[in-house]
Amino acid sequence: MFIRHPDNPLITPATIRPSRPDLEVIGAFNAGATLYRGEVLLLVRVAERPIVRDEDWVQCPYYTPQGDLAIRRVHRDDPAWDLSDPRVIRHRATGELLLTSVSHLRLARSRDGVRFSVSDTPWLTPASPYEAFGVEDPRITRIGDHYYINYTAVSPHGIATALVSTPDFVHIQREGIIFPPDNRDVTLFPEPVNGQYYCYHRPMPGMFKQMSIWLAASPDLRHWGDSRLVLAGRPGQWDAGRVGGGAPPIATARGWLSIYHGADEHDRYCLGAFLTPYDEPGRIIARSAGAVLWPEAPYEVDGFFRNVVFTCGAVVMAGQVRLYYGAADATVALAEAPLDQLLDTLVPC
Amino acid sequence: MFIRHPDNPLITPATIRPSRPDLEVIGAFNAGATLYRGEVLLLVRVAERPIVRDEDWVQCPYYTPQGDLAIRRVHRDDPAWDLSDPRVIRHRATGELLLTSVSHLRLARSRDGVRFSVSDTPWLTPASPYEAFGVEDPRITRIGDHYYINYTAVSPHGIATALVSTPDFVHIQREGIIFPPDNRDVTLFPEPVNGQYYCYHRPMPGMFKQMSIWLAASPDLRHWGDSRLVLAGRPGQWDAGRVGGGAPPIATARGWLSIYHGADEHDRYCLGAFLTPYDEPGRIIARSAGAVLWPEAPYEVDGFFRNVVFTCGAVVMAGQVRLYYGAADATVALAEAPLDQLLDTLVPC
Repeated sequence: MFIRHPDNPLITPATIRPSRPDLEVIGAFNAGATLYRGEVLLLVRVAERPIVRDEDWVQCPYYTPQGDLAIRRVHRDDPAWDLSDPRVIRHRATGELLLTSVSHLRLARSRDGVRFSVSDTPWLTPASPYEAFGVEDPRITRIGDHYYINYTAVSPHGIATALVSTPDFVHIQREGIIFPPDNRDVTLFPEPVNGQYYCYHRPMPGMFKQMSIWLAASPDLRHWGDSRLVLAGRPGQWDAGRVGGGAPPIATARGWLSIYHGADEHDRYCLGAFLTPYDEPGRIIARSAGAVLWPEAPYEVDGFFRNVVFTCGAVVMAGQVRLYYGAADATVALAEAPLDQLLDTLVPC
Repeated sequence: MFIRHPDNPLITPATIRPSRPDLEVIGAFNAGATLYRGEVLLLVRVAERPIVRDEDWVQCPYYTPQGDLAIRRVHRDDPAWDLSDPRVIRHRATGELLLTSVSHLRLARSRDGVRFSVSDTPWLTPASPYEAFGVEDPRITRIGDHYYINYTAVSPHGIATALVSTPDFVHIQREGIIFPPDNRDVTLFPEPVNGQYYCYHRPMPGMFKQMSIWLAASPDLRHWGDSRLVLAGRPGQWDAGRVGGGAPPIATARGWLSIYHGADEHDRYCLGAFLTPYDEPGRIIARSAGAVLWPEAPYEVDGFFRNVVFTCGAVVMAGQVRLYYGAADATVALAEAPLDQLLDTLVPC
């Protein structure tokens, strides 16, 4: 039921100015989305890597505690390192991991939600030891007159979720780490329910490995507790391998609509949807049987990481869900569906 | 400087009455400790397993969602399961894990802190889907006129930390999960600092695997945020592999004293200590250079899991730190040290 926009992909790495002359942009994807003063605003995850000057060396960028970008170089013939994964390299003896790219967040704005003007400079760059390997996958939630942006903070200390807030997308207040590692795919509810703030989050237990969507509650958006499991993958289905929050919950006449991602055992990422009552965000009352969007278009099937559609944000305009999504960890794309039709397809459970 | 008590180990599995006639106690260890009405109270982790009636079958106990104890049996010749670890078995195809024992918490009390009377019935048994594989490693912290007990909740959903409170060790109030999986070794501060509650916690990032001690803050003990790294292991030393909180912080004239555990790459668990200013629980000002206690006695070197000393609680009486600790994941032991001497050995950093 989601219809891909004919101009897809809307934002590609080639259109993004690198943050430094010695870097190249290899991904512009997984964008948070919101409406702001008559425009659609996106915060795009921009992944960069050092420009390759010598194919014999792998270059691994990271931010120092002083906030400077530094590069570790590893020779391709060095047997101490496992270089089989293009995204991350691993020291065979110590287990140390280094990433081959580093992400920051970039603001893009559009009057029609299709043609975006992307800022030439970063909106948020790594600025703490918890962000040494980058800031990723932002979700934007308007709560009252502030916008809260949570994002994944990646470093040798793990994969954590941090929060910033802004009244105007100019002044940024850092609110600290809200979920210690490993935890990502946090989606904040846009208003308090029963006097508490809520969010979905996705812990990543290392031993039991069950990657499911949990709910947490907070009095103030900074301190979170009362965590409980909400939605798990279904064996044998498209979301069997793992699930995680996608776009922040959307208030509808039938309850809270969430669009989430699921992956199967082959790391093929699709999107699904579920519904909870307005006053019980931990109770699933309906869920899409199949995926609502799956990798099919060439820019979804091929890219930096193949077979991925992954959302960090959607907006509702004139009864249409405009779903912004990352395609193949490379570009920003758009698909649209009538909200009522999307709700109609969910199967009560 | 810690002197082992000559009566060690103080509590052994043989002295514990099983919670059911078809179970046997295989461990009584990792006890939380507090002073209560002139007695030393321990909450002992009691590990039980189904009595072995047929050596050909591995029996894996777990609690159903209805709170009943059930047993999965796996034949030792079944090639689908990896049975090489006596503590946990793993399905080779699905990765499913089952534990071979299940823990509950048992109250023990003593007037002299040495001779303990252990209750014949459990004090806390698994009662939620997050505790299907047991409740482990309790820490007791008196805050105001209530005692807060946090413990590790283990289930297929991961290794989480839950909280209960009690005014009298009779009436128990469940406060929910305070740290989603994987996170354990939580130690609560016994009083608010600068108007906030604090705790140390130990996230377990699965990809980067850095197992360090973090601080978190809370307005109400149920909701936690502002997580930050406090103390990491030191390469090449006894705590190189991982560190985690041990006994809840002890207020001293020089600041907060914490006794923590560290393990090396061979999973040999020792205990160390560190100090923070009273009003800055996230800043280490002194730390033990070597371990303050290491596996040496026969009951520490041999047992269910060899070469482990691990603490969940200490009390201070007449200037002496009485450190209760689990020995080899099997028994409860006691070691004592003068508080001032222990503080003197810490090296400023």
